[in-house]
Amino acid sequence: MKALIFDTFGTVVDWRTSLIEDCTRFGNQRGLHVDWVGLVDDWRAEYKPSMDRVRSGKELWRTLDQLHRASLEQLLASRNIRGLTIEDLNYLVTGWHRLRPWPDAVPGLNRLRSKFIVGPLSNGNVALLVNLAKFAGLPWDVVFGTDLWQHYKPDSETYLGACRLLGLDPPEVMMVAAHNYDLHAASQLGLRTAFIPRPAEYGPNQKKDLKPEGSWDIVATDIVDLARQLA
Amino acid sequence: MKALIFDTFGTVVDWRTSLIEDCTRFGNQRGLHVDWVGLVDDWRAEYKPSMDRVRSGKELWRTLDQLHRASLEQLLASRNIRGLTIEDLNYLVTGWHRLRPWPDAVPGLNRLRSKFIVGPLSNGNVALLVNLAKFAGLPWDVVFGTDLWQHYKPDSETYLGACRLLGLDPPEVMMVAAHNYDLHAASQLGLRTAFIPRPAEYGPNQKKDLKPEGSWDIVATDIVDLARQLA
Repeated sequence: MKALIFDTFGTVVDWRTSLIEDCTRFGNQRGLHVDWVGLVDDWRAEYKPSMDRVRSGKELWRTLDQLHRASLEQLLASRNIRGLTIEDLNYLVTGWHRLRPWPDAVPGLNRLRSKFIVGPLSNGNVALLVNLAKFAGLPWDVVFGTDLWQHYKPDSETYLGACRLLGLDPPEVMMVAAHNYDLHAASQLGLRTAFIPRPAEYGPNQKKDLKPEGSWDIVATDIVDLARQLA
Repeated sequence: MKALIFDTFGTVVDWRTSLIEDCTRFGNQRGLHVDWVGLVDDWRAEYKPSMDRVRSGKELWRTLDQLHRASLEQLLASRNIRGLTIEDLNYLVTGWHRLRPWPDAVPGLNRLRSKFIVGPLSNGNVALLVNLAKFAGLPWDVVFGTDLWQHYKPDSETYLGACRLLGLDPPEVMMVAAHNYDLHAASQLGLRTAFIPRPAEYGPNQKKDLKPEGSWDIVATDIVDLARQLA
């Protein structure tokens, strides 16, 4: 094993709490009365359907920043939230560039980095992931975003594309994720797999991905535990 | 200005001295009597012609690792150096992954990184550049190798491809290089430019790139000086 590639939203960073705080602060400054918790959850609920429209060929390639922007515009319109400027929209959309890492992420990645190549393999685009890494202090060796291949996970082009760019065979690369679907796709292609449950990712009522649903190579409580198991 | 992208061989790392030492050590261990200085210089002399055959369409895309391997095999054969194993060849070719940074490179990059996105835009492939960064301790935020676009510099796809992946317009990105041809191509496309002369890159008899040959935005004595000028 030479490299670990990480799902990022949910696995490395706590997108939900970060976005709710970011949006709430923005709303308070603007004097807006909006249910930001509900809006953030609805925004994320558009994530998979919006990518699936691209994956199925119903829509041409758009980056995750572009998908986030389109779904937010629709959500604002449907909730009758009016009068936001283009700059406001830009600010809210780049909230996905300002997410806090889970507490174990940076120390865990730093430990892993001394022995392995570490990088994200996220549905985010490269610009989003680079800005996020700067904001959150994520010590990546390399950044894989889906705009490199114009394919979203779980398309095989993403997993195999990362392996090829690293010059490594799939068994030399471990996919790390809090989501079973991601590990399922990676393992089918021969990558190694590590599951890290993040039971609070979707808030207090999370129903899925509480447990491993496959025979993943490693199940770890967090990224520091993963580093310990691979030491 | 948001990001700086760096030519790597010659600008950030001292490929010639590093490779001569690496090859000489290898030769001594094998009891080989080879003029390694001459071989390294001849190897590098194949660099541009080998990329130009790809750029002109005479040859299909091959990564720099693959070009390095092909040109080394030819050089060994033409010098009648026989009996090296495939593992020996792999070792020598990956000498380009084990290059030392110029003394100013790591401290200069660390300073720049606190304010800007920094990454290589090198003719190397991503795997080479990631391995090199691990070996040399180069603190990149993102790694741009030419296999991302299957184009070698100075093709416009490389410079504009890096800007697009960063989500930035060319004037928001500065190309940093010890080679005037590289800055010429970047400036034609609207990127900013910084020249850092490396008069010892090609050894004691270097004739070219001793001085800036264009109106580059910045001329700096080294990467620490560049950071100082941009502070």
